Amino acid sequence: MSGNSFGKLFTVTSFGESHGAALGCIIDGCPPGIELSEADMQADLDRRKPGTSRYTTQRREADEVRILSGVFEGKTTGTPIGLVIENTDQRSKDYSKIKEQFRPAHADYTYMHKYGVRDYRGGGRSSARETAMRVAAGAVARKFLQQRLGIQIRGYLSELGPIRAEKLDWDQVHQNPFFCPDVDKVPEMEAYMDALRKEGDSIGARINVVADNVPPGLGEPVFDRLDADLAHALMSINAVKGVEIGAGFGAITQKGTEHRDEMTPEGFLSNQAGGVLGGISSGQPLLASIALKPTSSLRLPGRGIDVHGNPVEVITTGRHDPCVGIRATPIAEAMMAIVLMDHYLRHRAQNGDVVVSTPVIGQL
Amino acid sequence: MSGNSFGKLFTVTSFGESHGAALGCIIDGCPPGIELSEADMQADLDRRKPGTSRYTTQRREADEVRILSGVFEGKTTGTPIGLVIENTDQRSKDYSKIKEQFRPAHADYTYMHKYGVRDYRGGGRSSARETAMRVAAGAVARKFLQQRLGIQIRGYLSELGPIRAEKLDWDQVHQNPFFCPDVDKVPEMEAYMDALRKEGDSIGARINVVADNVPPGLGEPVFDRLDADLAHALMSINAVKGVEIGAGFGAITQKGTEHRDEMTPEGFLSNQAGGVLGGISSGQPLLASIALKPTSSLRLPGRGIDVHGNPVEVITTGRHDPCVGIRATPIAEAMMAIVLMDHYLRHRAQNGDVVVSTPVIGQL
Amino acid sequence: MSGNSFGKLFTVTSFGESHGAALGCIIDGCPPGIELSEADMQADLDRRKPGTSRYTTQRREADEVRILSGVFEGKTTGTPIGLVIENTDQRSKDYSKIKEQFRPAHADYTYMHKYGVRDYRGGGRSSARETAMRVAAGAVARKFLQQRLGIQIRGYLSELGPIRAEKLDWDQVHQNPFFCPDVDKVPEMEAYMDALRKEGDSIGARINVVADNVPPGLGEPVFDRLDADLAHALMSINAVKGVEIGAGFGAITQKGTEHRDEMTPEGFLSNQAGGVLGGISSGQPLLASIALKPTSSLRLPGRGIDVHGNPVEVITTGRHDPCVGIRATPIAEAMMAIVLMDHYLRHRAQNGDVVVSTPVIGQL
Amino acid sequence: MSGNSFGKLFTVTSFGESHGAALGCIIDGCPPGIELSEADMQADLDRRKPGTSRYTTQRREADEVRILSGVFEGKTTGTPIGLVIENTDQRSKDYSKIKEQFRPAHADYTYMHKYGVRDYRGGGRSSARETAMRVAAGAVARKFLQQRLGIQIRGYLSELGPIRAEKLDWDQVHQNPFFCPDVDKVPEMEAYMDALRKEGDSIGARINVVADNVPPGLGEPVFDRLDADLAHALMSINAVKGVEIGAGFGAITQKGTEHRDEMTPEGFLSNQAGGVLGGISSGQPLLASIALKPTSSLRLPGRGIDVHGNPVEVITTGRHDPCVGIRATPIAEAMMAIVLMDHYLRHRAQNGDVVVSTPVIGQL
Repeated sequence: MSGNSFGKLFTVTSFGESHGAALGCIIDGCPPGIELSEADMQADLDRRKPGTSRYTTQRREADEVRILSGVFEGKTTGTPIGLVIENTDQRSKDYSKIKEQFRPAHADYTYMHKYGVRDYRGGGRSSARETAMRVAAGAVARKFLQQRLGIQIRGYLSELGPIRAEKLDWDQVHQNPFFCPDVDKVPEMEAYMDALRKEGDSIGARINVVADNVPPGLGEPVFDRLDADLAHALMSINAVKGVEIGAGFGAITQKGTEHRDEMTPEGFLSNQAGGVLGGISSGQPLLASIALKPTSSLRLPGRGIDVHGNPVEVITTGRHDPCVGIRATPIAEAMMAIVLMDHYLRHRAQNGDVVVSTPVIGQL
Repeated sequence: MSGNSFGKLFTVTSFGESHGAALGCIIDGCPPGIELSEADMQADLDRRKPGTSRYTTQRREADEVRILSGVFEGKTTGTPIGLVIENTDQRSKDYSKIKEQFRPAHADYTYMHKYGVRDYRGGGRSSARETAMRVAAGAVARKFLQQRLGIQIRGYLSELGPIRAEKLDWDQVHQNPFFCPDVDKVPEMEAYMDALRKEGDSIGARINVVADNVPPGLGEPVFDRLDADLAHALMSINAVKGVEIGAGFGAITQKGTEHRDEMTPEGFLSNQAGGVLGGISSGQPLLASIALKPTSSLRLPGRGIDVHGNPVEVITTGRHDPCVGIRATPIAEAMMAIVLMDHYLRHRAQNGDVVVSTPVIGQL
Repeated sequence: MSGNSFGKLFTVTSFGESHGAALGCIIDGCPPGIELSEADMQADLDRRKPGTSRYTTQRREADEVRILSGVFEGKTTGTPIGLVIENTDQRSKDYSKIKEQFRPAHADYTYMHKYGVRDYRGGGRSSARETAMRVAAGAVARKFLQQRLGIQIRGYLSELGPIRAEKLDWDQVHQNPFFCPDVDKVPEMEAYMDALRKEGDSIGARINVVADNVPPGLGEPVFDRLDADLAHALMSINAVKGVEIGAGFGAITQKGTEHRDEMTPEGFLSNQAGGVLGGISSGQPLLASIALKPTSSLRLPGRGIDVHGNPVEVITTGRHDPCVGIRATPIAEAMMAIVLMDHYLRHRAQNGDVVVSTPVIGQL
Repeated sequence: MSGNSFGKLFTVTSFGESHGAALGCIIDGCPPGIELSEADMQADLDRRKPGTSRYTTQRREADEVRILSGVFEGKTTGTPIGLVIENTDQRSKDYSKIKEQFRPAHADYTYMHKYGVRDYRGGGRSSARETAMRVAAGAVARKFLQQRLGIQIRGYLSELGPIRAEKLDWDQVHQNPFFCPDVDKVPEMEAYMDALRKEGDSIGARINVVADNVPPGLGEPVFDRLDADLAHALMSINAVKGVEIGAGFGAITQKGTEHRDEMTPEGFLSNQAGGVLGGISSGQPLLASIALKPTSSLRLPGRGIDVHGNPVEVITTGRHDPCVGIRATPIAEAMMAIVLMDHYLRHRAQNGDVVVSTPVIGQL
């Protein structure tokens, strides 16, 4: 209820601060009998991990996850899965300055108003470091969805500031440090980021996430539509400022004849809806896209105030990502996996595993 | 859990189908001692009501709400508030055709896959008729927020297909059938809609919603951020395909120095964040914007399939809104009100009504 | 969250005051495809209904339930089921006295402290009149459990004050006004109740509830054990002061060799556990027993205080049950049905409808 | 949703198996600004700890709790509190026998039916070892309740098999290994337990728990009454078979004039209700009593079956408590603390910290 849980039936509850002892989470509701080991999570964690290229923060964290419960003889038992990642790179540092001031566009100011106290070391709970647990938990969901339902969830960076990917070549996504599916744009992105780093500034980005082979019928109208829960999940990722499903904001200028996805016995003729009709999956690929803001932690000075209300000039010298969007791809995939997993279980609760006689039409 | 409730502490649970006996909802968690009567809700319901201009559906519904419980001697008692609206204009009609076919881009197909049965009359539960209860419940939240905290929630249509409002004059919003804040664009919108109706097509729209005087401190990191819950709430409205907070998708091409809202003792110098930092309200106006798709219920024929998987040509001859975005403004306001109300109660639960010594800086 | 919902996946949310316009509830999560009509609920409502014998309150309520949504062409659709019962016998009465005073052992005093206001007419929300909706919702659960799983839920009055039923003859339970399974004790109970009514006093009772054919595997350790949720459900019924599962308080003086239910391939050799092991159903009959206190609404004067803190002598002259336990049997059955239904759906969510190879042993 | 969380606003989610790597929990919703260290929890943990006398299991566990998050500079921050206790005494042992058989009256059989797999080492998740985290979390609630509201929660063993405490001397409770408040009965209990251990059998017990200084107004009618949530909490403790509030099962034979607690300006004249009226605290002491069954893990042989359905003779040679009730006192106190804490936050959410003008009458 205080916001640290996600999912109603596949429930992830997380804890941990940027510079605390450890991060952790509990996954409750995972079906029993799934083969699971730390290695299943580590691959995704490594994709999110800081310090893997010169375009991300140089903080060094092994992000080694440890399973504390819920897995026995290599399989989930249906009991809660406790996960923990120890924080290792908590540089000792003088925090006396940051303790007294509110950095512009940071959560310092709002946490203080909310709680009256705050852990100011590295942003505390408001740090994106928390998303490591999302990735770990998402890996569990992803594995189940892949093995039992054949669902595949993949993401990529489609825009880095002014540079747009124009091709979608899935094989390229993990061949470059940007998760960019268009190999031709990679050199441009590299040059852009190098210039940006010299400048001391940061930039926004867009991430697209796609789930293929989603069965029709997932989603709970009217409030917990699949797309609404997905919007919730994706907007809860640090730095996200916008979420689109299918045509998204493009739908504003579309006419009905253009937007509506016609159906034939062979399949849908388009996917403007992004795989969701009336809040329920249609069997088409689930398409979501998110906007991530540029980080506000800059060495370029900005105006802030201190805890007494006095003006201060703020310079942030820590190790920060100049484009937080770059590392967001595995996080967005993880959140989509958690949402789909949760809705699969919710669907199964009410409707069972019944085979519906309605024809499932193909996917284009 | 089956999706018909919204809000954790100010909880709205609704029921009702388009052509069923009645719509209703239960509001649980409303604080006691609030003056409340049907009239408080009726004003908002009337703004959403169909048939008020030639640009909306001609279905006639009085949408008269009745309070069945939770109010005594004109005040809320803290017990659940039961509300009901009887459906009056359920035209008797031959549904044999629609019963057998899946209209393109409708929930017919997905409801059938999910449940194996469906109420096909007028879309049943998937009809936007359901949103009447959101508006009624939202009016209760809105009243509390206004009276106790001075929060004001207002929305407007900022784009109707290709036509954009370029001025924001709040006084104009209720002077035209489009909720358009730019009086100069109204004739253009009228002409556009008249042409569209002749054509038989429909169009998308954009709605903006703003809450002023939101106190800092509302929102529950990390998953139930104020903006994440707002995204959930707004994306759950029929036809919504995208949600933005503050700069939204514009943040993709912004640099950090441009996006970060600097603070001075007199106030924030900008509001790119849209009133939320780290998922918690900052005291700035809360800014959200949504994209609504064009309705798919058209008299222009479209390709669909029937329940046996055969191709059919679908023509929808019912009374439908050519731009569902037009009536969406009070619905979006209602959902923002419910989210803020819920987060106010959640905040109060954990943090009490404590006065934080941190200076609250002004709003620009 | 404010206490008016029960069940996580089969969720009943109710509203309504004793002397308000109507009572109602929303059932969310009911599986689709179940045949359902008002008649299915009316039979159970009639068993709970006041005024059916001289041993219960003489308030006259038809308790006619109306289905407002969620059922189409005689079957549930999976969408929320809205139910309403209009209050008809709200005798106009002078409430000025009760308005100012707190009756001993009533909720008047605590509601006032909690909410600062209260609907004092007939107890308002604290009246047992609210339980009518539990019975209606329970009837839906009961029907599903019976039809799909063969589960049968039955209750009876086992003690009325000092008089204990010594035989359990299910055929007798509905042949007398006490739900007593021992026909030989009925005359004694009649005489006792007649004397009590003359006296102006009231008496406590014990109700037993049994579910047969519960499949093994229902219940969610560690906090939402089947028995813990059942204790919650039963203790939430007005006037209940104690709950036992299986041996109950008798287990205090039992030795392990006496309490543990041994198993053979043919079945369990006893049922001290009451059908639950480790919080999960074992396949044995589920056995619960509850204690109901005597009503405190008496015409015999009692000491109370008024809203100003002054002492008052309280005499309650309304129409009250001298033994509220008598009408509690269908309510307790309904709550057990809701708990089992909820746990069946919860089980199915996590575990599916898998057939476990473990041998299910017989029931003795 | 899978049963490993308790509390709606003060939420404890736990994980861990008897012989797994560690136990842990996350407390979400704890108010900020509370002084908290491991020492606050350790005192209660030590009271529950095994091996402190010859009357409990000889398993040796330090039960040292470690705070991983949510506390900064000695105070809670309002963010989730992660706790972990490493398991240290997991004797290596041959589990091949227990792996194949279902012990009578254990959760082996039901876990297997529910999940299809189970961690058979020491009972896995069904072991009472899990309650260590309840005690740790309860200590946090207890500290808040004590400091902010002056609430004091204490428990004691009132019956050990046939031996009843006849005096309530709080000073004695922690002076003997049984938590017995009647010093005169301690030698009798010692002799009884010594005989029992020789015999190889086990015995049931009764625990009483009392909360003093509970303010009036806590509890959420109608389903989440304070007593109903308490029944849920207490019945969820391993081995509990019955719960009573106030007069409990004694109310069956009480008359209304005897049961109803009369009120005078100086206070209530009795406390048959056990501190709850209409599901809401009255300001009187909150009184609960629970029955605990004898453990079924005995070295005396019992009949069970194996996983193939064949009959087996089961002898349990592990280190087990001959009376699990003895160590249950701190667990029951912890659960009462969590329930009260949760209801305090729930009350504050809806009703704020308002001072009600209604006179609060004294406690007798």
